[in-house]
Amino acid sequence: MPALKFDILKKDSKTGARLGIMHLPHGDVETPVFMPVGTLGTVKTLTPEELKEEVKTSLILGNTYHLFLRPGMEIMKKAGGLHAFMHWDRNILTDSGGFQVFSLGALRKITEEGVEFRSHLSGEKKFLSPEKSVEVQNIIGSDIMMAFDECAPYGSSYEYVKNSMERTTRWETRCKEFHKNTEKQALFGIVQGGFFKDLRKKSVEDLVKLDFPGYAIGGISVGEPKEEFLDILRYTAPLLPEEKPRYLMGVGTPDYLIEAVIAGVDMCDCVLPTRIARNGTAFSKYGKLVIRNAEFAEDFRPIEETCDCYTCRNYTRAYIRHLIKCNEVLGARLLSIHNLRFLERLMEDMREAIKEDRLLEFRDEFYKNYGIESE
Amino acid sequence: MPALKFDILKKDSKTGARLGIMHLPHGDVETPVFMPVGTLGTVKTLTPEELKEEVKTSLILGNTYHLFLRPGMEIMKKAGGLHAFMHWDRNILTDSGGFQVFSLGALRKITEEGVEFRSHLSGEKKFLSPEKSVEVQNIIGSDIMMAFDECAPYGSSYEYVKNSMERTTRWETRCKEFHKNTEKQALFGIVQGGFFKDLRKKSVEDLVKLDFPGYAIGGISVGEPKEEFLDILRYTAPLLPEEKPRYLMGVGTPDYLIEAVIAGVDMCDCVLPTRIARNGTAFSKYGKLVIRNAEFAEDFRPIEETCDCYTCRNYTRAYIRHLIKCNEVLGARLLSIHNLRFLERLMEDMREAIKEDRLLEFRDEFYKNYGIESE
Repeated sequence: MPALKFDILKKDSKTGARLGIMHLPHGDVETPVFMPVGTLGTVKTLTPEELKEEVKTSLILGNTYHLFLRPGMEIMKKAGGLHAFMHWDRNILTDSGGFQVFSLGALRKITEEGVEFRSHLSGEKKFLSPEKSVEVQNIIGSDIMMAFDECAPYGSSYEYVKNSMERTTRWETRCKEFHKNTEKQALFGIVQGGFFKDLRKKSVEDLVKLDFPGYAIGGISVGEPKEEFLDILRYTAPLLPEEKPRYLMGVGTPDYLIEAVIAGVDMCDCVLPTRIARNGTAFSKYGKLVIRNAEFAEDFRPIEETCDCYTCRNYTRAYIRHLIKCNEVLGARLLSIHNLRFLERLMEDMREAIKEDRLLEFRDEFYKNYGIESE
Repeated sequence: MPALKFDILKKDSKTGARLGIMHLPHGDVETPVFMPVGTLGTVKTLTPEELKEEVKTSLILGNTYHLFLRPGMEIMKKAGGLHAFMHWDRNILTDSGGFQVFSLGALRKITEEGVEFRSHLSGEKKFLSPEKSVEVQNIIGSDIMMAFDECAPYGSSYEYVKNSMERTTRWETRCKEFHKNTEKQALFGIVQGGFFKDLRKKSVEDLVKLDFPGYAIGGISVGEPKEEFLDILRYTAPLLPEEKPRYLMGVGTPDYLIEAVIAGVDMCDCVLPTRIARNGTAFSKYGKLVIRNAEFAEDFRPIEETCDCYTCRNYTRAYIRHLIKCNEVLGARLLSIHNLRFLERLMEDMREAIKEDRLLEFRDEFYKNYGIESE
């Protein structure tokens, strides 16, 4: 039996949105889902219990590149994989490491075989290839693995993107062939093709032949204007097999999440909610609140009156501002819990809206409160 | 009715140790007790729930100097005091701010009226006096307040210490007169006198006349050799009124805690357990473990097999080392929980040992395991 079974419970009648459930080795995941990012085997500042009990997280993301360097695969193997190592008994998705090694710029060299790079920490020479990425992810033991791809930078030429996309298809083919542990780990394909629709179409056609249990859209939300993001998102998502989960990588602002779900995306991840938390910023339904600002110094309300999270149940904006101003870790913790819970509630609300066939109305209402102009 | 009622349940027959209970506005505190330090309205990295449920803390310490500067007393007043501000419903003890302002060195000027100083943060001119310290602690709303004293630096001359001690007595007299809220906040006196026994004796005699509900020993554990510490501790503690709680300020190593309890001390505090946690060091019954060291990279045991804390129940040394090496906040959190729980368990064990009249045996056994030579 394969590691993943995906049931679509309902499709929205006016948009591409779907309500679903992914059955995975470490429990069920309701979709659309937002995945908190746990780069180094910890969702920054939080415990697994906080993720389960306060955020209501069922699936987190781990970064193959970072875990490959630290703690390294010798220790990961001896620990019995990432779930045991970090004390997390729900699902984990790992990326392939591709995005991070390509981001190293001058520190890496791409060949058909794979990517040679220098560790951003030690300068030590390392190598990642499709086979190596799968091997590493097998050791990590993630429930969903990602195929090794190249994410072409925004602004790359047609020629570059075409070559890169074709090589990505060859690399993903090698990943598929190399991955044996299919009963415990589902390997997803990643569509590339930059901002060229014919290349996106070709990428989808080639990858669909490989029959991955799920597909990601890579290479967007990489710095382009919002119109271009939406254009490629709306073009690509519907090309993907309907009965399989669709994952949009690296998206975490409320409006991008909403548009992704409307376009038919089932999964998203981003470091944004925890990163802005550490900088002293909170999500709220009325837009972002820069809690570190002086205006909150004597504001004794919770971040959001209607939020059910630990932070909003117990602490005021004034106290959290004080913590952030004093660089106290608890400030980052409290905002991380709230921001992740905020996005989880957004996904819950969207699942409910799909169920009741009112997703577009939900979007309009959300945008009005949040201060985002609808197109 | 006064804020504090102190019952001594049992005295150890072979040492000065006492088993007691302090009845305070925010619940009972079993003594001897160790108080975690929450400098800026947060015990660094932890939530109140973690302190209550995992560490089993009944009393924490807050720093008047730091809270006076941040968030400042305007906000503290509007928040309704520190308990409400920081979401802590158990007891709080505040120091007087004296120790911190004297530590400012060139930034402060002492007169009979009080201490003028510059904020270590903004450079702004500020003033603390006996009356001001009491006023600030009244706003903070701590259950136990400390009188404003001068802690003379280690190595000060007899003349300096004598003058300083005498002024301290005058200042504490002013504190006592100024403090009105005695039903909700117990004001403790602080004995000074440096390392001169006659001055210690004189300080105790003068302060006992003021009839404080509890007494602290200040001005030791300030950098002196252990023999001198023990000498003054053992000389001073028995001079204090037997029926009142005795508090030794700024002590947090296991051996100092044990010797303090044996000398008849009921309360101690220190930043040590949380500070060394952030540096990657853990207490254990076999001595300190520098978890960040390479020797723990593949050590998949808990910090202490027999510890009942959240950290030891769920995480390995290898994982915590990985977190610390990666500067992940969760590492400091997990070690802070363990180190505070370790000292709380030490106090629990000593309370049990006093009950069973075997405190000296407990000490010998503890020292043997920990690798401390008994005198």
